Amino acid sequence: MKKLSDIGEDELIVRLVAGFAVDDKLVVGPGDDCAVWDDGDGPLLLLKTDAIVEGIHFLSAADPLAVGWKAIARVASDMAAMGGMPETYLVTVALRADLAVSWVERLYAGMARAMRECGGVLAGGETTAVPPGSAVVISVAATGQVARGMPVLRSTGRPGDIVAVTGELGGSIAGKHLNFTPRLAAGRWLALHGATAMMDLSDGLGRDLPRLAAASGCGWEIDEASLPRSAGSSVAGALGDGEDYELLVTLAPEDLEMLLAKWAADFPDLRLTAVGRLTAEVDQADRATGWEHFR
Amino acid sequence: MKKLSDIGEDELIVRLVAGFAVDDKLVVGPGDDCAVWDDGDGPLLLLKTDAIVEGIHFLSAADPLAVGWKAIARVASDMAAMGGMPETYLVTVALRADLAVSWVERLYAGMARAMRECGGVLAGGETTAVPPGSAVVISVAATGQVARGMPVLRSTGRPGDIVAVTGELGGSIAGKHLNFTPRLAAGRWLALHGATAMMDLSDGLGRDLPRLAAASGCGWEIDEASLPRSAGSSVAGALGDGEDYELLVTLAPEDLEMLLAKWAADFPDLRLTAVGRLTAEVDQADRATGWEHFR
Repeated sequence: MKKLSDIGEDELIVRLVAGFAVDDKLVVGPGDDCAVWDDGDGPLLLLKTDAIVEGIHFLSAADPLAVGWKAIARVASDMAAMGGMPETYLVTVALRADLAVSWVERLYAGMARAMRECGGVLAGGETTAVPPGSAVVISVAATGQVARGMPVLRSTGRPGDIVAVTGELGGSIAGKHLNFTPRLAAGRWLALHGATAMMDLSDGLGRDLPRLAAASGCGWEIDEASLPRSAGSSVAGALGDGEDYELLVTLAPEDLEMLLAKWAADFPDLRLTAVGRLTAEVDQADRATGWEHFR
Repeated sequence: MKKLSDIGEDELIVRLVAGFAVDDKLVVGPGDDCAVWDDGDGPLLLLKTDAIVEGIHFLSAADPLAVGWKAIARVASDMAAMGGMPETYLVTVALRADLAVSWVERLYAGMARAMRECGGVLAGGETTAVPPGSAVVISVAATGQVARGMPVLRSTGRPGDIVAVTGELGGSIAGKHLNFTPRLAAGRWLALHGATAMMDLSDGLGRDLPRLAAASGCGWEIDEASLPRSAGSSVAGALGDGEDYELLVTLAPEDLEMLLAKWAADFPDLRLTAVGRLTAEVDQADRATGWEHFR
């Protein structure tokens, strides 16, 4: 009998979504940072859900204020990667009955703080019990909006496009994974300035760039020496640690010099670094150094 | 130190939502069957999330096809209770790595079947790992739509209104809790025919009617002899078993006779039964015979 541990998350998702009906209004479905729903006029609706699990995405001893922040900020980061803004959040928290009320209140205080920073309001949600010994699960679903014509997908990169990343990569486990700032303004800027494809870096550049390239029907190459590494992080860490929550973006090579100059003026405190390019060569071996669930 | 087991779910939710920002577009926030988001024109957006947990809402040995059905149908039932229709679903499943791939595929087949029955499409989601020994959690967030002016809230019942329920109550654990049909057509019908307040029955009439009454600033009374009981169910079961997934609705008394006659013509296979009324007396002792989490 084949178990989940025998296959990867990516293969599982392909199997699972195969049997579902489709709707023309769902202009971007499963597989991108957000789904996009087009109800006919006005801005497009962005849809995203994301969960964090005790013992997987945060330790039991972590400050619940930071855990709450992370739960909301991860979803906002996906909105950023489409060039959009979050509007509403639905929060589901599966809790053990022996947890302190104060722990849960602090968790929600962290979520409220993240919503003030990222935009969007709590529209609803649920608390539910899990049996003793089970991990706490925090699941956040969000809606957002992006102007018609603006959303940037993973699948629209072209051979020759420059691959760039915001910020610095690697070493997130030292703290950034709990207190990162979603790149909402940067995502809008990149969408407005001609990004050809974009996603957020959650599993590490070494895993996420092959995904973006595959979605775009391209290969890819990285100049490892150019990677913007967090203090103390190795090249392997920058490629594989994961949980960077930076933006991975592709840009037309002819625009690069101008865009980098304008970026430096608009975001003096955030780096945008060219680290590689998309290629026409698609049968390249997958350089899977990032994090994958189940395996 | 106060633990979750010391307070109830209702008290917890009141504490948790207190610190959050609000937005004028959120015309119905936490506390009703769905949240309602008004983006200015066109239909209103309904938002709902709901989770089911192994060992709480379904047994480990349950057929995953039925579990998947239930996960989707519960959310559709909340859309029904607003007079609306589901449009998109985001599905988060937290799984142990030792689960069979075939179990997960059958779970998703059940969800696909429920979407074909209830309407709406899978827009995205996530699979995530939980540590060994943890319960499986299935969290479904959905968007839906309802025509402007149509959504029926819990809070708009009036003293003297007749309290009615669809279908039959009690004994859901014998099977209905896994294979119920959300009352989507009935919910739309009731919204169109002047329902003054509505919610779906998830925790039992004995717990849910006091909630609707409290939200409406009313008291309530039930004629226990009139309760439409499932085969083999006692009055106590009809009040307290929970998971009926029928609609609880209030109706103007002067319309009742006409509405019941029209109902019988439009829904020959589904009962609509008057079981009590809302009263002006609000300090009535809470008859909490239903199911509450954590306690």
